[in-house]
Amino acid sequence: MRNYLPILKWGREYNRSALSSDLLAAVIVTIMLIPQSLAYALLAGLPPEAGLYASIMPILLYSVFGTSRTLAVGPVAVVSLMTAATLGKVASTGSADYASAALTLAGLSGLILIVMGVFKLGFLANFLSHPVIAGFITASGIIIATSQLKYVLGVDAGGHNLLELMSSLVGHVLDTHWITLLLGVSATLFLFWVRKGLKPLLKRLGAGEALAAALTKTGPIMAVVGTTLAVWYFDLANQGVNVVGAVPQSLPPLTLPSFSLELTKSLLVPALLISIIGFVESISVAQTLAAKKRQRIEPNQELIGLGAANVGAALTGGFPVTGGFSRSVVNYDAGAETPAAGAYTAVLLAVAAVFLTPLVYYLPNATLAATIIVAVLSLVDFSMLSRTWAYSKADFTAVLTTILLTLGIGVEAGVTAGVLISILLFLYKTSRPHVAEVGLVPKTQHFRNINRHSVVTDPSLVSIRVDESLYFANARFLEDYLYDRTVACPDVRHLVLMCSAINEIDMSAIESLEAINHRLKDIGIQLHLSEVKGPVMDKLEQTHFLQELTGRVFLAQYDAIKTLTPSLCEADNAA
Amino acid sequence: MRNYLPILKWGREYNRSALSSDLLAAVIVTIMLIPQSLAYALLAGLPPEAGLYASIMPILLYSVFGTSRTLAVGPVAVVSLMTAATLGKVASTGSADYASAALTLAGLSGLILIVMGVFKLGFLANFLSHPVIAGFITASGIIIATSQLKYVLGVDAGGHNLLELMSSLVGHVLDTHWITLLLGVSATLFLFWVRKGLKPLLKRLGAGEALAAALTKTGPIMAVVGTTLAVWYFDLANQGVNVVGAVPQSLPPLTLPSFSLELTKSLLVPALLISIIGFVESISVAQTLAAKKRQRIEPNQELIGLGAANVGAALTGGFPVTGGFSRSVVNYDAGAETPAAGAYTAVLLAVAAVFLTPLVYYLPNATLAATIIVAVLSLVDFSMLSRTWAYSKADFTAVLTTILLTLGIGVEAGVTAGVLISILLFLYKTSRPHVAEVGLVPKTQHFRNINRHSVVTDPSLVSIRVDESLYFANARFLEDYLYDRTVACPDVRHLVLMCSAINEIDMSAIESLEAINHRLKDIGIQLHLSEVKGPVMDKLEQTHFLQELTGRVFLAQYDAIKTLTPSLCEADNAA
Repeated sequence: MRNYLPILKWGREYNRSALSSDLLAAVIVTIMLIPQSLAYALLAGLPPEAGLYASIMPILLYSVFGTSRTLAVGPVAVVSLMTAATLGKVASTGSADYASAALTLAGLSGLILIVMGVFKLGFLANFLSHPVIAGFITASGIIIATSQLKYVLGVDAGGHNLLELMSSLVGHVLDTHWITLLLGVSATLFLFWVRKGLKPLLKRLGAGEALAAALTKTGPIMAVVGTTLAVWYFDLANQGVNVVGAVPQSLPPLTLPSFSLELTKSLLVPALLISIIGFVESISVAQTLAAKKRQRIEPNQELIGLGAANVGAALTGGFPVTGGFSRSVVNYDAGAETPAAGAYTAVLLAVAAVFLTPLVYYLPNATLAATIIVAVLSLVDFSMLSRTWAYSKADFTAVLTTILLTLGIGVEAGVTAGVLISILLFLYKTSRPHVAEVGLVPKTQHFRNINRHSVVTDPSLVSIRVDESLYFANARFLEDYLYDRTVACPDVRHLVLMCSAINEIDMSAIESLEAINHRLKDIGIQLHLSEVKGPVMDKLEQTHFLQELTGRVFLAQYDAIKTLTPSLCEADNAA
Repeated sequence: MRNYLPILKWGREYNRSALSSDLLAAVIVTIMLIPQSLAYALLAGLPPEAGLYASIMPILLYSVFGTSRTLAVGPVAVVSLMTAATLGKVASTGSADYASAALTLAGLSGLILIVMGVFKLGFLANFLSHPVIAGFITASGIIIATSQLKYVLGVDAGGHNLLELMSSLVGHVLDTHWITLLLGVSATLFLFWVRKGLKPLLKRLGAGEALAAALTKTGPIMAVVGTTLAVWYFDLANQGVNVVGAVPQSLPPLTLPSFSLELTKSLLVPALLISIIGFVESISVAQTLAAKKRQRIEPNQELIGLGAANVGAALTGGFPVTGGFSRSVVNYDAGAETPAAGAYTAVLLAVAAVFLTPLVYYLPNATLAATIIVAVLSLVDFSMLSRTWAYSKADFTAVLTTILLTLGIGVEAGVTAGVLISILLFLYKTSRPHVAEVGLVPKTQHFRNINRHSVVTDPSLVSIRVDESLYFANARFLEDYLYDRTVACPDVRHLVLMCSAINEIDMSAIESLEAINHRLKDIGIQLHLSEVKGPVMDKLEQTHFLQELTGRVFLAQYDAIKTLTPSLCEADNAA
């Protein structure tokens, strides 16, 4: 029971000191979350209040079911983009169907996460390789930033990939609304300056590191306050500047997502992708922060916590959520000690939703877009391309494909292609394992690649080391390799397969070994094994292979050489 | 050039002795092929002459481009079944569209094989694991045998999976034509007796092994001659026994397959599956026979040879073909020395197609069905189920899924599911690698699993050996494992990762190692590596990981222990 309700663990140790730390962190995170929530709702194509609602109940539920003490759950950039891309296919932005589909998407995503958690399927997320995630996040950052340019320009444009977005923007560039552009660009430049220049300035003015860092985080709220006042004072809303407008003063409403067959069918795959991407993003933040305090994250319980958060979003007018990087770091840095900090944040956000929404009436959309652009551009990082280029062409191919397809076609295509191509390249790599012919290093009992080292060999004996487990995809490769190596050499009497790097042999590989044994027997060559690992030997003993083996199984490669070609060892010892 | 035309190699050594061996083999194979060709055309749902045509030009072309000296190419049971299953979806059996689609299917299959050969994509066939092939062939054998029962009963039934076939047969069982049934059952029993009883009988009568074996192979032709004479003598065709009827007396016609977009689209995936299944079946026969004479098979050139054979089938009124097991063994046993034997077989079959077709007018379809049933039942072998059950549950799951889906849904679904499930299970297995905590075996420098062996350890040092390459699918698993192992133990100061079984580390795993290093650092634990393989070390040196590593890289695990916990080694030496 306590495994499924982590709150029972930390709740009983809760004390006054934790309370005051958590409250302080909650205030700071709330100030940060208000503009962020509104902005990500805009990005997802939903009304601004949806962003607030998506930050209240989900945080509360995560604080009950989640295992991270400092993770802050809510709308995040990449998941909001994926939400917009998905919903755009089933309804038109701004329609009631669109908001209703957002609830279904959050609900499906929540149920998928819970099912994955209950059945311990968290390992599925492992198939998103790091290079694919890096490529996907970089490309998403570019798409998100581009998608927000329309608010900065004050024009009507759209699209779900870079090509569509750019051509739409270019087509509308002559409609640019200059006052909006001025506001948007000012906010953007201000936010960039806050990031780069404010902290050094504050420190020069004598502020401590912590204070300087905290004030730097208030950049978005300062931009929001400044531009809202400007719009109000100069009456810019009546001059065509798009503003957030009337936001209902209300607690999150109770909503029931529709799970009609048709809608579920078209949202199921996107919901799965959103769940997995969200989980991967969230768990790595949670683990990094937990490690700093020797705390543990249970990946499968995290799935349940995030699942509950998403079901909460679906039931209270929100949209898909996950643990966010920047807000969690702020929460951690602000001193949050338990998930109660999240609960207090939720309460403060609820108060804001009821009392403060009139204050954002004059907040220009361009400012929200500016906060998004500045936030996501920090996600854009092409260094994975150069790192993988140097390290592994397979990984490079996976990153490049993910980036190009995400930019060129869309987020769903990009991430799916990335996953498939990493799996295919991995299979291809293991299907052509590294195989070395080895010889004895003189005066030792070690064996090394004959092409890399000066070693001694005997023409009657060939020793082959395979640096990979044997399974169906490389079984035939080995068959071909060994047969090719021996068929042209009538002197060969013994073939020793050195199995030190073989961690597993599957049924296909057993049958290939049987075929190799049989074919070598036909041409008068004995097959021997050496250095077979314990677990592999256990499995071989369950088959007929060892009885049919024409040669022997040697514990060590040197034993094989000593037994089969004693003259070689004698000569080496005598030399 | 000679690589692409193997005929240039063996052709220049051709002599009189090879000629006479090849001619003899050709005669024997022709006698065997005539009933087989007619029968497989029946199975594929095509007119009988298509079977002969599919055996003439393909054999000729294979003898020019193929690398096996004894492989006999033509229609085979499993590929004919797949052909019928595919064509049944695009046209109705017996229609002109059906025969025309068969040409397209052969043409596509040929082109796919040639492309695979030219681009050296033969490794794709490796993803069909042995258990999946065994399950697929067994299930196909059952479906084929069941599909032929309608000819033995003389009723009109159909279906492409076992359920459809059985329910259709049961629905028509009251229409059974008793004379046909008598003929069919007699032929079946006779053929079974020939297989089991004739050879011992002949040997008791004093015949030599070779003669007895050769006569046993003439069973089908004897059944054909016997039942044809019976139908002719008793005028059974007029009493409702279905016979082959008029077959055009002609050389193979020149045909041009249609590659219309729609047809190509619906046949492309089946053609790919047929190509790969056919290639896998053919190459294993070819390799087994070649090994007996120290001959070599070039898999990629084999693709070209089989591709040419299929293109030949498409251009001369045939249907998809491949190298057959039983006919190749007969060819080999009969003494064929070069692919010229195939060419002579083609000539003899052409002579038969022109002059002998009137003789099969009264041949009952029930006899052809009997030859198919007896031939395919030898393919049915459920032993793979018990073997894999004992050896590996993953392999067992793959076989069972393949068998059930092939029987229950159809050949295409069965083989596709088999391939996908083997890949998924392989990925799942490698995503949860075997990880052992190891300790020092007293008085040695060896390290073994602490749970299996009596070893010594020091509380400040944890040694972990991972028995798998590190890649994206298991990178997070390792992260979780190492963090879980150390977070609860405040005594631990050193974690040594023993890398002796790690053949490869991809970019995701590097990043995971960086995260592990970072998190362990946060809780005051140094990360060390030991026994890193040369190629893996080469790659690690291209990254920043080694500079960031808090600990050291030790050549041997014992060095790590000696350096980090000298007291342990001293105590052990002193003990």
